[in-house]
Amino acid sequence: MRETQYDQLQEKLYYEKLENGLQIYIMPKPEFNQAFATFSTKYGSIDREFVVPGQNEPVIVPDGIAHFLEHKMFEEEEGDVFQDFAKYGASANAFTSFDMTTYLFSATDHLKENLETLLDFVQRPYLTDENVEKEKGIIGQEIQMYDDNPDWRSYFGVLQGLFKNHPIRIDIAGTIESIAKITKETLMDCYKTFYHPSNMLLFLVGPFEPEETVKLVADNQARKKISPQGEIKRIFPEEPTEAAHPRMEVKLSVSIPRCLFGFKEVNPGVSGRDLLLRELATAVGFDTLFSRSADLFNRLFNEGLIDKGFSWEYEVSEAYGFSVIGGNTKDPDRLMTIINEELAKVRQNGVAKESFETSRKKLIGKFLEGMDSPRYIARNFTSYRFKDADFFDSIKVLEELTHEQVNQRMAEHFEPKAQTVSLVLPNS
Amino acid sequence: MRETQYDQLQEKLYYEKLENGLQIYIMPKPEFNQAFATFSTKYGSIDREFVVPGQNEPVIVPDGIAHFLEHKMFEEEEGDVFQDFAKYGASANAFTSFDMTTYLFSATDHLKENLETLLDFVQRPYLTDENVEKEKGIIGQEIQMYDDNPDWRSYFGVLQGLFKNHPIRIDIAGTIESIAKITKETLMDCYKTFYHPSNMLLFLVGPFEPEETVKLVADNQARKKISPQGEIKRIFPEEPTEAAHPRMEVKLSVSIPRCLFGFKEVNPGVSGRDLLLRELATAVGFDTLFSRSADLFNRLFNEGLIDKGFSWEYEVSEAYGFSVIGGNTKDPDRLMTIINEELAKVRQNGVAKESFETSRKKLIGKFLEGMDSPRYIARNFTSYRFKDADFFDSIKVLEELTHEQVNQRMAEHFEPKAQTVSLVLPNS
Repeated sequence: MRETQYDQLQEKLYYEKLENGLQIYIMPKPEFNQAFATFSTKYGSIDREFVVPGQNEPVIVPDGIAHFLEHKMFEEEEGDVFQDFAKYGASANAFTSFDMTTYLFSATDHLKENLETLLDFVQRPYLTDENVEKEKGIIGQEIQMYDDNPDWRSYFGVLQGLFKNHPIRIDIAGTIESIAKITKETLMDCYKTFYHPSNMLLFLVGPFEPEETVKLVADNQARKKISPQGEIKRIFPEEPTEAAHPRMEVKLSVSIPRCLFGFKEVNPGVSGRDLLLRELATAVGFDTLFSRSADLFNRLFNEGLIDKGFSWEYEVSEAYGFSVIGGNTKDPDRLMTIINEELAKVRQNGVAKESFETSRKKLIGKFLEGMDSPRYIARNFTSYRFKDADFFDSIKVLEELTHEQVNQRMAEHFEPKAQTVSLVLPNS
Repeated sequence: MRETQYDQLQEKLYYEKLENGLQIYIMPKPEFNQAFATFSTKYGSIDREFVVPGQNEPVIVPDGIAHFLEHKMFEEEEGDVFQDFAKYGASANAFTSFDMTTYLFSATDHLKENLETLLDFVQRPYLTDENVEKEKGIIGQEIQMYDDNPDWRSYFGVLQGLFKNHPIRIDIAGTIESIAKITKETLMDCYKTFYHPSNMLLFLVGPFEPEETVKLVADNQARKKISPQGEIKRIFPEEPTEAAHPRMEVKLSVSIPRCLFGFKEVNPGVSGRDLLLRELATAVGFDTLFSRSADLFNRLFNEGLIDKGFSWEYEVSEAYGFSVIGGNTKDPDRLMTIINEELAKVRQNGVAKESFETSRKKLIGKFLEGMDSPRYIARNFTSYRFKDADFFDSIKVLEELTHEQVNQRMAEHFEPKAQTVSLVLPNS
């Protein structure tokens, strides 16, 4: 077992890799009541084309299958996973993102029993023709519900405006048409490929005892006799550097237009500490422009062009990178004119030195706040780990971050040709 | 300063009441990075009729004025409150509910400076005819946005279905028409009445040193020379025991109907430990019926009648009490038929003993988990304190809770005459 000490955070992280390839990370937090356990596979909605280990030809699977599989994992031949967790006072959940699927529980007691339940249900698929058909109805309803949601529609409008070919432009749940094509067999192909322990990571935070816990997991895995598996080859299409469409529009019954805009990252392809640096430099830059204490935010707010819900996010990985910024506005055109004038100035002159310092400190504070929350730690740790980055290095990266780096980042990111604007407009 | 020790939680709570009436509660959490400070007034959307201390006649103020005042408090004669907080690495926010308005910051550093900023901006209204007019546009936009939201509409559909007269049936933000009537003068009347320190509470959780912090607050308040104020007389209308309307319906452009139902509490009028007992007995009962491990939930889920978003809430106070339960469904009528059959059985036979035990333990776990989160603690503590209840007693109340009490609670609450169903249906 490897032990890493983070002096500044006063935290320790334990690491073990089992024979079947499963990686285990444990951050003991004995002073916490809550334990949080996540069992994740590096498998999300963008993994639509890949070579099944042992085969030669790539396969293309129906859109939305990773999310579909997540749903099906909760079904058991006998009984119900939620009841198994409830019996020992735990709550369980799961979510599927662009590039990972996570199963989790939180509990204050009976950590061993709950951990066994977590490992066992995720490693025991129960698929029948009937239960796959039934799920299509349930997920179809979920898809329709998101279709009603103006925020979700404007968000995917940005991704569809930015990306021409990359599967990140496709809704995580797929479409009614794509999920109709899902069968028990394709689900099992995906399961065998991506739910192999060598593609998975177990992260535990809370009052866990490291030695004992690793032994419990190792014994559980040894009983299952899972043979090793080669690397998974994922195939992604070529993606041009400019945005696919400068403007996307849809009409829904809303009273106030939603206006989101975003930029495609011209050079993604980062991982490890470079990825952390790129995300944090972008975050600091965005905070100087779009947080509630920013001059630009206040100018727009005082003109009544934006409201408190104005927000932003940024994500980058090996295969894609993008920002999504915006909210409600009574006048999308005027809003975008002012913002684009300001972003052109930022590309030229950078952000104010004083704002940079304030935002950098604010982000250090936010990170430290997050370290109080098992949920926050668990969610971020695995996502960065799958990108070869150590989330706990964030504070060091922020401390070493320079004004110059943020200015460079903003100049690089705010490329007009890589921009799209996505509008949801009232339909009357 | 009074000190209370909660042995089971291994927490201490410090209390002081200042001469001007302000109550201060501090829960030191030296092991936490994050500090969370809330400054709250017992004043929310339901306080529409009251006697201003020193006057004789009651006044009725426009709907939505508490929320309007919350918005205006962030405006300063010079500069911007968010910048003052950002300078010291803090994030600020505020919210208005039915019966309280809370201003808060979270920070990991410069707690003294941020605390002074919080106290000063909330105690320094800056209202002009111009800035009040301008705010009507901003809030009007917010109201329209909520009007688009099927979840919000179905939620207030329940409250309007349940309550005939009580102002809880009115949207917290008011309406475009009601906020048009708000003036600088009515805002100041409300401010003087409800923002007097004797109607307010400061709650701090995180790495605060109690003695030092109380001295800082006392000095800050002494400088402001605020004279004492008599009690505020609030006036609420009579409310019948049965629901105002058995069914509420609205059409919006949704693909899946929303179906929420709820019950009006026939006998609210509880406070203190009785209130805590009533809320927790209801919560345990609802968990046995509507959580993801419940038989009823699973039956409805497997029939495709509900999805994962099915949820419930319950609230009771001196003046009102109600539940709101439900989510999306493809068949509201069939859903309500099955649920009402089941609830009739529960009134007769109670909930299963084993489910009661599981849910009770689960809620104890949830409470302990929450104790790890300054945000969760702060949000709940003040709300209960304003109802003379001690949130930290929750665990004791849960431990002493009996199966019989939960069964009685369910029999009392699920009164068919006090039920309403609120539907948001597709408009095509």
